[in-house]
Amino acid sequence: MDKFNVIVIGAGPAGLKTAMRLKRLDFNQKILVIDKGTYPSFAACGMPFYLEGLVKDFDDLRKTSFGSLRDENYFKNYANIDLLLDYLVTEIDPESKTVVVLNNVSHDTFRFQYNKLVIATGSKAIVPPIEGLSIEDENLFTLKDPSDSIKVKSYLEKNKVNSACILGAGLIGCEVASSLFNSNIDVSIFEIFDWPLAALIDKEIGLYLKKQMFNNGMEIFTGEKVVKFVSKNKKTIKAISEKREVNADIFLICSGVRPDTEIAKKAGLEVSTKGAIITNEFLQTSNPDIYAVGDCIEIKNLLTNKTFYAPMATYANRLGRLVANNIMNNNTQTFDGSIGTAIVKVLDFNIAKTGLSEKEAKDLNIDFETVYYSGFDKPHYMSESNKINIKLIFDKKTDNLIGAQCIGKKANVDKTIDIAATIIQNKILNNKVLNLDLSYSPPFSNSVDILIQGFQIYENKKNNMYKGISFEEVKEILENDKNMENVVLLDVRSEDEFKKVPSPFKNVINIPIDYLYNSDLEYIKNKKIIIYCGTGSRSYQASVMLKSKGFREVYNLEAGVSGFY
Amino acid sequence: MDKFNVIVIGAGPAGLKTAMRLKRLDFNQKILVIDKGTYPSFAACGMPFYLEGLVKDFDDLRKTSFGSLRDENYFKNYANIDLLLDYLVTEIDPESKTVVVLNNVSHDTFRFQYNKLVIATGSKAIVPPIEGLSIEDENLFTLKDPSDSIKVKSYLEKNKVNSACILGAGLIGCEVASSLFNSNIDVSIFEIFDWPLAALIDKEIGLYLKKQMFNNGMEIFTGEKVVKFVSKNKKTIKAISEKREVNADIFLICSGVRPDTEIAKKAGLEVSTKGAIITNEFLQTSNPDIYAVGDCIEIKNLLTNKTFYAPMATYANRLGRLVANNIMNNNTQTFDGSIGTAIVKVLDFNIAKTGLSEKEAKDLNIDFETVYYSGFDKPHYMSESNKINIKLIFDKKTDNLIGAQCIGKKANVDKTIDIAATIIQNKILNNKVLNLDLSYSPPFSNSVDILIQGFQIYENKKNNMYKGISFEEVKEILENDKNMENVVLLDVRSEDEFKKVPSPFKNVINIPIDYLYNSDLEYIKNKKIIIYCGTGSRSYQASVMLKSKGFREVYNLEAGVSGFY
Repeated sequence: MDKFNVIVIGAGPAGLKTAMRLKRLDFNQKILVIDKGTYPSFAACGMPFYLEGLVKDFDDLRKTSFGSLRDENYFKNYANIDLLLDYLVTEIDPESKTVVVLNNVSHDTFRFQYNKLVIATGSKAIVPPIEGLSIEDENLFTLKDPSDSIKVKSYLEKNKVNSACILGAGLIGCEVASSLFNSNIDVSIFEIFDWPLAALIDKEIGLYLKKQMFNNGMEIFTGEKVVKFVSKNKKTIKAISEKREVNADIFLICSGVRPDTEIAKKAGLEVSTKGAIITNEFLQTSNPDIYAVGDCIEIKNLLTNKTFYAPMATYANRLGRLVANNIMNNNTQTFDGSIGTAIVKVLDFNIAKTGLSEKEAKDLNIDFETVYYSGFDKPHYMSESNKINIKLIFDKKTDNLIGAQCIGKKANVDKTIDIAATIIQNKILNNKVLNLDLSYSPPFSNSVDILIQGFQIYENKKNNMYKGISFEEVKEILENDKNMENVVLLDVRSEDEFKKVPSPFKNVINIPIDYLYNSDLEYIKNKKIIIYCGTGSRSYQASVMLKSKGFREVYNLEAGVSGFY
Repeated sequence: MDKFNVIVIGAGPAGLKTAMRLKRLDFNQKILVIDKGTYPSFAACGMPFYLEGLVKDFDDLRKTSFGSLRDENYFKNYANIDLLLDYLVTEIDPESKTVVVLNNVSHDTFRFQYNKLVIATGSKAIVPPIEGLSIEDENLFTLKDPSDSIKVKSYLEKNKVNSACILGAGLIGCEVASSLFNSNIDVSIFEIFDWPLAALIDKEIGLYLKKQMFNNGMEIFTGEKVVKFVSKNKKTIKAISEKREVNADIFLICSGVRPDTEIAKKAGLEVSTKGAIITNEFLQTSNPDIYAVGDCIEIKNLLTNKTFYAPMATYANRLGRLVANNIMNNNTQTFDGSIGTAIVKVLDFNIAKTGLSEKEAKDLNIDFETVYYSGFDKPHYMSESNKINIKLIFDKKTDNLIGAQCIGKKANVDKTIDIAATIIQNKILNNKVLNLDLSYSPPFSNSVDILIQGFQIYENKKNNMYKGISFEEVKEILENDKNMENVVLLDVRSEDEFKKVPSPFKNVINIPIDYLYNSDLEYIKNKKIIIYCGTGSRSYQASVMLKSKGFREVYNLEAGVSGFY
């Protein structure tokens, strides 16, 4: 029986990263990687872009940056790694430290011995138990494995597909919707929650995104559950929710993934209630000679101090390296955990999140304050300047930033969210953030970076320089005071802007801020004044003015008109 | 005599930011801002883009993001600030707390009293003392004040300008060179130092930039001093260096700026040897009732612990806010200092720097290690993927990152440098950086962020997993061993790449990495082996292979061929 220093089950990014790193640490080790599939080290995150045609060739997702196809020969020649593809591990015997392997084609079985074992079996697409959902239908797909993207692409090429129906507006659902829409396919999306990406972002940003998807021509049905699929001649023809029926030429089930851990469970390794393998901080499973890495494990959330399931390529890669280091160096490196950073492009909109959402902060009973604001990622006089809406969440006790979310058309939200992630993860104090020496030149950023502006706004809010109010709160006030007896809505934008971008409210007074200071407003002095402008900046200035004149109940609509258009 | 709570001298970004913030903190204060020029709150950083025509209208650089022109009326109506333009402050009397002001047109003088005074007089262009340099010539300009950009633009519009000669390849010199070049004007640049942006970046990045500028068609003469200008009929016609004469239709002096502090010196305030006003951490001058802010002061460099002159808009803006806070709240906010972050766009190349350069680290006697590497800012299969070359500098004693520089065509270096700045300024430990939860999705970044890759490389280097060597070091070895008796250059790129992108060296052996492990290399086993590839990644793998075969002297050319092409 062949004996290996390390056997890795799974040739995805996590497994192969582990194997490659092991060889770099000691090239003379014997390493075996076993995978039940055909395409090792496949860049699964590129699938939506392959469907859209932005990635021309399926093999581009299999190649290195220098153009080598990562097949068995590549791993053999480049790193002297033995790679068995289309082989299924049917059993792990921790006692004898062996694995039993079945050849998918010949059905022969083999047995190999390991010194250390790494489980990197990844995840499987979730197929929700909905009446009539037939995963065998030729036009209904999940999008998880390399072969899925081949099947979908091939179906799109061979059939006239004018419409697609997508189940789930999570990360993958939104990306696929965007890809298909950009390929001139009509797209309808069903989402159980009230806005897209609901597991990531809060209502303000979520409803803003929903509006943009709708305005661009997508059908998106939120808060709606598909209760039935109708299938005919091996084709799904219809999805039915409580409210409507949607016919489509193609159906995509984007209901998330779950850990693929049958083999681990069978070997008696501990798994979570969600079925993910439980590891310690060195990524050892309940058996110290067996490590686990990638989409089959749960990781710690640094902010909640609980483990959670976060099947993301960025963890897979970095943790593969860490597992190899720990195998070679006797468990010296630990994984701190995740803070839930994520980013996605939907149409031309970039959306990102890091840290806690408002909902997560509430669940943790944190006493928090939010700021929601709108601005430009570069000076307004530059043509590449893009609007960006940002929500920041601060812990009121420590003043620390604990969460950030942003959205903007073509805006470089990745920079904003990555600086925010660095701040959150390292608990950098606000006075240090206000002093951060970030780069500035007009093609790149503002003289005061858009993220730092948010910290300035928080400081103003904390010092009671203004009272913020959200669109939802305004709506509630107006509902309770239908005749507007005690409330005034004051739009301080210019007359031009007021005409061009209509107010989201009725019965509004428009006094451009230039005229405000000298206007006679005594007649509304005792009312609740809600001021708004384009982004929240002029309304802030206006609220300062009115307070200097003795007005007491003055509120500034956060992010202004930009917050919801 | 009119008395004001605060008088601000200078209506640039720093002065007006101070004034606006003061009014927000207490709208009822009387604030006077005095400026000798005509254009308050002008976005000077936008001037190169105005010259290029990217900013269409001069007034765009004077407007707010919501389209209001920031003139006297604007500041009066928007913030009830009194703004005197074209008035020169001729005297500050700290005893009586008064300023004497001269009307530039009528030559009348006035006297105003202040409670607190803020000096924000900014900077002046340096005109170096070169024989024949005549600043009065109609085709020779500096580029500092709003009026300068009007003059240059008007000259470009009214005259046939085919060629420009620029003195100085610092930030402004490079930006202007780029603007004019993009406007189809032949550009020649003289720079005293050996590469452009020499005050910011080290040799590797600097020579790389120089090569790109040259390859794109700019003439750039580094290490060359202009010793004479020749002028005829009020026009400069020629710049003469030790090596050559350059004729041009237009000449731009971009030799930097110096603080404009005559009035401060006259008032007896302390200034540095460079003439910049010295302030404490609250930005008070040697007279506690007088603050100073913006390009007329020196600021602290957090990393050297010395003050230095850094006339940048980003400090001006943030410090204006801080001065106002300190005036109103009795000096409660401090400015930590700068870490020397800067960014610039030259042609399509983005170049940025933060922290210490190698030269600065040497001057501070820091025991440091560098890594220089090349990669892509996004996955190679995405069409928007751009090459980026990065140099990181680590303090060997603490392992902390202390400096970062990068360059890349269209690459988002601003993100990389801003994360690096956040890490450096907050002394985030390497194991925390390796765990940073940054955002990943193919349109934005790599699954392991390009900056984090550098920290992984540093860890490898520190653990002696490879020995790095620089292009300059290789050159030196080859010069000392002209017949290559003890050294072998091993190119492990594919045959295709080897043909397409020629090796920068002669007498090279090309063995694509796929064939390396099984090649018989015993005959060179006792030589010094210098391995290189496209970016440094395959050569690293190759060096691991050779070491496993008992090779001892194996070096990996950092950043590979990408490092110098």
